Amino acid sequence: MRGLAVPLALGLSLSPLFAQTDPLPSWNDTAPKKAILAFVAGAGAIPPAERIAVFDNDGTLWAEQPVYFQLAFALDRIKALAPQHPEWKTTEPFKSILAGDMKAVMASGEKGLGKIIATTHAGMTTDEFAAIVQDWVATARHPRFGKPYTECVYAPMLELMTYLRANGFKTFIVSGGGVEFMRVFAEKVYGIPPEQVIGSSAVAKFELRGGTPVLVKQPQVEFVDDKEGKPVGINRFIGRRPVLAFGNSDGDHQMLQWTAAGSGPRLIGIVHHTDAEREWAYDRASPIGKLDKAWDEATAKGWIVVDMKKDWNKIFAFQN
Amino acid sequence: MRGLAVPLALGLSLSPLFAQTDPLPSWNDTAPKKAILAFVAGAGAIPPAERIAVFDNDGTLWAEQPVYFQLAFALDRIKALAPQHPEWKTTEPFKSILAGDMKAVMASGEKGLGKIIATTHAGMTTDEFAAIVQDWVATARHPRFGKPYTECVYAPMLELMTYLRANGFKTFIVSGGGVEFMRVFAEKVYGIPPEQVIGSSAVAKFELRGGTPVLVKQPQVEFVDDKEGKPVGINRFIGRRPVLAFGNSDGDHQMLQWTAAGSGPRLIGIVHHTDAEREWAYDRASPIGKLDKAWDEATAKGWIVVDMKKDWNKIFAFQN
Repeated sequence: MRGLAVPLALGLSLSPLFAQTDPLPSWNDTAPKKAILAFVAGAGAIPPAERIAVFDNDGTLWAEQPVYFQLAFALDRIKALAPQHPEWKTTEPFKSILAGDMKAVMASGEKGLGKIIATTHAGMTTDEFAAIVQDWVATARHPRFGKPYTECVYAPMLELMTYLRANGFKTFIVSGGGVEFMRVFAEKVYGIPPEQVIGSSAVAKFELRGGTPVLVKQPQVEFVDDKEGKPVGINRFIGRRPVLAFGNSDGDHQMLQWTAAGSGPRLIGIVHHTDAEREWAYDRASPIGKLDKAWDEATAKGWIVVDMKKDWNKIFAFQN
Repeated sequence: MRGLAVPLALGLSLSPLFAQTDPLPSWNDTAPKKAILAFVAGAGAIPPAERIAVFDNDGTLWAEQPVYFQLAFALDRIKALAPQHPEWKTTEPFKSILAGDMKAVMASGEKGLGKIIATTHAGMTTDEFAAIVQDWVATARHPRFGKPYTECVYAPMLELMTYLRANGFKTFIVSGGGVEFMRVFAEKVYGIPPEQVIGSSAVAKFELRGGTPVLVKQPQVEFVDDKEGKPVGINRFIGRRPVLAFGNSDGDHQMLQWTAAGSGPRLIGIVHHTDAEREWAYDRASPIGKLDKAWDEATAKGWIVVDMKKDWNKIFAFQN
């Protein structure tokens, strides 16, 4: 007891010494934080095996502007491969990529995008692809922030996932992004192991090369983990309905509906991009991360809508 | 020290007091058990996140005779549905199923099997299907043993999986069986949660029914998790190469090759069905669970081949 006598004698309150550390310091004390704290406080009612929490990635865990980061990877990759492909100087969409004409690249539409993905995401083994992504993650810099893309992740969401895991939740990514792209960094950046990353995928083919088995990435799309694909992916990969889901766009709408429709305690959240100064502000009219119908349902159903400007005192760890 | 004086004075050895409980009591002290104990003793060299162990199901964790258990489920289901389908009395393969003519059912080949699976595994929601399987698991009995199918599981393999999990391994099923079929009982029977069950699957379709989202099972096959499909499935669902793999047939060959080809400590095992008395004896010539090429490679590479008769003192918990 002697150790306590000094602060008591000095008239200091002991309560800060025993106060719990705030698990969500980057969240302001507004409605979303209160709802999260209340939900986790009641998590004891959910059997541990059912504490499944799913998160979209682009626009929910990391930024998605000025273009999806995986598209930035693909464009960088085409530039890196260009010396071996002189024919690209006269072939679209490569010509426009090399000329830095993003408008023309976008105008090439799904066909152009298909060529970009097939060129950069197929024709190599899964191990080779992972090494290429690893190298890009280590060297590429975000054009606005000058930081590695893997630092353009939302500090409040990292806190939320850490907090959930500390309370027995298993966190999953359920993203339209490529599963083999995300798995390269998800464990280090998000604390999410590869087997808890769900995403879009292409066909892979098993081959024995000189007696060594390899998986070769093919250009054919196998699964698109977006919109209706998200609950399908959750069912396929997890096989259990989540109790918590966070997204930011209409691409997440069905995942949020699927999660909300389960029985028992539920937390459904949307990250609303409202901060043009620290990040970006976009919603109903945005070609990337359009948030329209899911927002309407969130309002009608009382789901959490996080206003990044109002509800987060920090967005990226590298700011302030 | 006084506590030890009495047994010492009585000339009793202390070592049994401190001996570890045998983690694999159903395994005889033959080569496979020794190899497993040595592998797990050295597991400290494997980073915890990489301790991924994969197991085939049919013939490796539970029996697969006289027919695959999932086929038994499908045939039982057709009998249960028959009163609503008078036309089945004259349509194959239903007619032969209802007449109990298994030879004719088998003669209907892939086309017949496709009809059986489409009839019993599609056209309902995923929740409805799980309830049907749950009911079958609770009521159906194995024709030879008179026990629930979920008791026809190999006690030594349950011990092995428990032992691995106690040493920080994450256990997965990688089976040609239907993923939604296995997930109904895998957690209770094997201690493997749904998100660690990988299997074959059919297409599922997201629908809103009166505002409630459902996933409806379709007849189209989506993924066959067998042979070359097993490493593909491991890559798709786990995204990390296992360090331990167990199978029993040529359907597991590529999974064993894929696992063996990684660097660092590896344990590759095959369950060889050699005990016609307690279970069944079959290998190279069997239409179910054919073990031929994988056995040859196991012999050449020094993989573990478990001789059920010699290496297991117990096969099922209900036998002693």
